[in-house]
Amino acid sequence: MPYINVKITDEGVSKEQKQAIIKGCTQLMVDVLDKNPATTFVVIDEVNTDNWGIGFDQVTELRNQALNSGTK
Amino acid sequence: MPYINVKITDEGVSKEQKQAIIKGCTQLMVDVLDKNPATTFVVIDEVNTDNWGIGFDQVTELRNQALNSGTK
Amino acid sequence: MPYINVKITDEGVSKEQKQAIIKGCTQLMVDVLDKNPATTFVVIDEVNTDNWGIGFDQVTELRNQALNSGTK
Amino acid sequence: MPYINVKITDEGVSKEQKQAIIKGCTQLMVDVLDKNPATTFVVIDEVNTDNWGIGFDQVTELRNQALNSGTK
Amino acid sequence: MPYINVKITDEGVSKEQKQAIIKGCTQLMVDVLDKNPATTFVVIDEVNTDNWGIGFDQVTELRNQALNSGTK
Amino acid sequence: MPYINVKITDEGVSKEQKQAIIKGCTQLMVDVLDKNPATTFVVIDEVNTDNWGIGFDQVTELRNQALNSGTK
Repeated sequence: MPYINVKITDEGVSKEQKQAIIKGCTQLMVDVLDKNPATTFVVIDEVNTDNWGIGFDQVTELRNQALNSGTK
Repeated sequence: MPYINVKITDEGVSKEQKQAIIKGCTQLMVDVLDKNPATTFVVIDEVNTDNWGIGFDQVTELRNQALNSGTK
Repeated sequence: MPYINVKITDEGVSKEQKQAIIKGCTQLMVDVLDKNPATTFVVIDEVNTDNWGIGFDQVTELRNQALNSGTK
Repeated sequence: MPYINVKITDEGVSKEQKQAIIKGCTQLMVDVLDKNPATTFVVIDEVNTDNWGIGFDQVTELRNQALNSGTK
Repeated sequence: MPYINVKITDEGVSKEQKQAIIKGCTQLMVDVLDKNPATTFVVIDEVNTDNWGIGFDQVTELRNQALNSGTK
Repeated sequence: MPYINVKITDEGVSKEQKQAIIKGCTQLMVDVLDKNPATTFVVIDEVNTDNWGIGFDQVTELRNQALNSGTK
């Protein structure tokens, strides 16, 4: 009965990408721990880039400063 | 000083239902653990059905597939 | 398919009290939101009193300072 | 590599205030635990006042009842 | 910069299984969302079976009642 | 009524360091958002280094590989 919470920035994640995350996390629980998918929950939280900080800065600013950086 | 986080899908939960959840969780902490309600927090997160997965699938799809199923 | 996370201090909570919390939270989801208990999770986290702060202080200190206070 | 999650009510928190929270939490990890800011995350969740309860009541009601109270 | 929190019961999960969960979740973020693994965190919480409830019951009891059931 | 959850690795954090984290986070809520410290909670979770992954690897391994690296 795993519960998996995925927090990501809200930068245009599509319904199909969310489905792929759900499928992938659930399959991982089946493959690694032999868990029952029927009682495996995956919850995705999309966080505004103003509300996520890394290295002292808001992701909004990191995106503005370095659109092509490897920080995603 | 309990902290209770309730995650549910965002399917039209009313203000009155939220109040009932808050009252019920707080009362449970008083009844079972003799906690002080003044320092008992209840936080409700409403999650889009695209962002909640169970048994490999998005709740959005489960709702479409089986509107009358017992899975809520 | 609610997920409820209850965070409390680790001050001798018994197995029976944990069971009562699980039953109470689950029943609340059934009563208020008509949720299916078979897909309702309750997870209890017990937190050391050194690791919980309120009003600037560790609960450990609050307990030492005021054993009979109403803060629980 | 700390992860800090700040949950607050969604009562007009500005982008500058969010930045101040991110900087302050990150600096605290550097000062107290000598952590690397480049791998320190701060995530701020803003919660609707209907969805936050304290002392049996929704914060929405507490705000209505006592606009000048010290409860923030 | 995803943050993934995996909550599972503490039933003898090996270090190798934890590594597999970390690798799998991180790879999923790379494959689906093109995220940078260097800023992808995975945190696994192992929860005592007394502290996890599903369908009104503690997992401890579910394990006792039905050692061979499909509920994991 | 903020709730702040600090997740760090369990690498010998002292009671005094925990107290400093609690004080610092609470003061930040007072300074930035004018919150009431009496209803500000700080909860610290200490996570085993086997259970924390970054960049595909367990922190345990990162510590073994690079004891003097800047990754903390």
